[in-house]
Amino acid sequence: MLQDKNPQLTPVSSLGEFGLIKHLTENISLKQKSSEMGVGDDAAILNPEGKKILISTDILAEGVHFNLGYVPLKHLGYKAVVVNLSDIAAMNAEPAQILVSVAASNRFPVEAFEEIYAGIDLACKHYKVDLVGGDTTSSNAGLILSVTAIGFSETEKIVKRSGAKPNDLLVVTGDLGGAYFGLQILEREHSVFLANPNMQPEMEGYEYILERQLKPEARTDVRKTLDELGVQPTSMIDVSDGLASEILHLSDQSGVGFRLYEEKIPLDPQTISTADEFNLNPVMAALNGGEDYELLFTIAAGDFDKIKNHPDFSIIGHATETPDNYLVARGSEELVKLTAQGWDAYLNK
Amino acid sequence: MLQDKNPQLTPVSSLGEFGLIKHLTENISLKQKSSEMGVGDDAAILNPEGKKILISTDILAEGVHFNLGYVPLKHLGYKAVVVNLSDIAAMNAEPAQILVSVAASNRFPVEAFEEIYAGIDLACKHYKVDLVGGDTTSSNAGLILSVTAIGFSETEKIVKRSGAKPNDLLVVTGDLGGAYFGLQILEREHSVFLANPNMQPEMEGYEYILERQLKPEARTDVRKTLDELGVQPTSMIDVSDGLASEILHLSDQSGVGFRLYEEKIPLDPQTISTADEFNLNPVMAALNGGEDYELLFTIAAGDFDKIKNHPDFSIIGHATETPDNYLVARGSEELVKLTAQGWDAYLNK
Repeated sequence: MLQDKNPQLTPVSSLGEFGLIKHLTENISLKQKSSEMGVGDDAAILNPEGKKILISTDILAEGVHFNLGYVPLKHLGYKAVVVNLSDIAAMNAEPAQILVSVAASNRFPVEAFEEIYAGIDLACKHYKVDLVGGDTTSSNAGLILSVTAIGFSETEKIVKRSGAKPNDLLVVTGDLGGAYFGLQILEREHSVFLANPNMQPEMEGYEYILERQLKPEARTDVRKTLDELGVQPTSMIDVSDGLASEILHLSDQSGVGFRLYEEKIPLDPQTISTADEFNLNPVMAALNGGEDYELLFTIAAGDFDKIKNHPDFSIIGHATETPDNYLVARGSEELVKLTAQGWDAYLNK
Repeated sequence: MLQDKNPQLTPVSSLGEFGLIKHLTENISLKQKSSEMGVGDDAAILNPEGKKILISTDILAEGVHFNLGYVPLKHLGYKAVVVNLSDIAAMNAEPAQILVSVAASNRFPVEAFEEIYAGIDLACKHYKVDLVGGDTTSSNAGLILSVTAIGFSETEKIVKRSGAKPNDLLVVTGDLGGAYFGLQILEREHSVFLANPNMQPEMEGYEYILERQLKPEARTDVRKTLDELGVQPTSMIDVSDGLASEILHLSDQSGVGFRLYEEKIPLDPQTISTADEFNLNPVMAALNGGEDYELLFTIAAGDFDKIKNHPDFSIIGHATETPDNYLVARGSEELVKLTAQGWDAYLNK
């Protein structure tokens, strides 16, 4: 981690607050047609171009959401953006702008801010969103990132959590549980390093799950795929806290129940082999691990043929009339009641 | 300050993150026509109703922007909203929604969050804006509030910092320097209290300046007043860092200079008498104190007659062709070059 004990590093006080913001944002160019004016005035000006606005905000705190012992600052900046874009994607909308605020204690020099903003910039370029505002401040301790994301959509395309109907199919993108095991590897190697700083961390063979944890991606591509397939989901949410917790949200807000089939839950081979190594059940990581940032949605049963052969979508269950939620155990008829043991910023302290 | 050492107080972990958000937002009702859906999904849905979107974010950190030794949590919640609405007002737009994120260490019980949200709710009611999103998290230390404000305006009404022309008149609302002296009183009485906890703080006779510091208001009313007077400002900014700093922003972004007349700067009698008591110049507090949240704007010289008799507006100077900025000293022709010594979150550490 960057520490300002190094005399070559630049204390933030040498630039001041305005100087720091100016320094970090001077190379920004706006790409979105809806971004009329960005950083530099009292507020940014956006042009909705006749569409509805989707807006969401998430705050990430050091020691709660990330450990700078093994999370590079650039990855952190990237992930902070992704987490928020994922919320816009979960409304089936197109993300267009972000605002980023950073509170950091004076142990973070200008170079640390530069790393965070390099990650933010990379995410902006990758997702074609514009950074249009933000704020920086010093703080008493630690590092906190607060990101607000804005997206746009035609009214008829927006998908809420509340639209699932009985017999709708439950679909998830990509695979689940990888981010959880990526974190286990990072924590294991960090402990080894703390015990013996001469040990090199063993990261080989864990590339995929490490990337799932350190550099997750938001599924902003799904909107276009669904559009091409001619499918409009009836409800949608992103998988940030684990499949179980998200299913319960859809259940609660749609007033339906769900049957989830254990054998249908998509798992990457690396997730399975690492789970094996830790003597853990990979399904538990998919259900309760969180941070996969895939999309979970429901579609009308009549849309089955449109998506059944798509390699990125897994049909993992269906909605029921009764509001209870069950996991159907692999290779049996046994029903296990789903409960939310998802990741919780408070319970994990 | 609320501490969770008191057994009657409720630790946040007893509710969990979702429980806390639900608890804090369960009584919210949306008032704005543009608020289509608020808290409870992945993102809020807003309807721009054909207007442009103005968006701004500000972050407040304990020990930097506020001291909980003398700032009640309810006032803090109120002020965090006001500071952000002020940015929307400074674009001559109408604020409509806010999103609020709070990071707090586990020394803050549920009751502390309730107090903060009571202040936020009060501000929402007063300014008729809707709380449509947010996030809460635990943090390693201290309390951090991050607020994003959204406003709307017809394109032709929006006022940027960049439109001032030579000979435009420089106008400020209300009076300046009060918030600075309110803070001096709070700090003085807090020191007295720390030295002797049996001493009662002496707040009598300082009501106005204390309110300016603890419960400032955003000048969201000015848009309507200007509209009624038939005046469209050419540039505008809010006075958050002090008059000098804001004038330099307008100067820089408009490419003009300003002459500011010391004797025209509006000061409340309580600001003047308290300055006297502290043996300080009240004009210096107006120039560099900050946190007054008044609006500073320029108007075409031809609009002079429209505003000259308005009791809330003071004409304090004018724009010049040359880009230098000067204070014209009281009762003399002496020119003092204006420099930004405004409040800075880093330099004040």
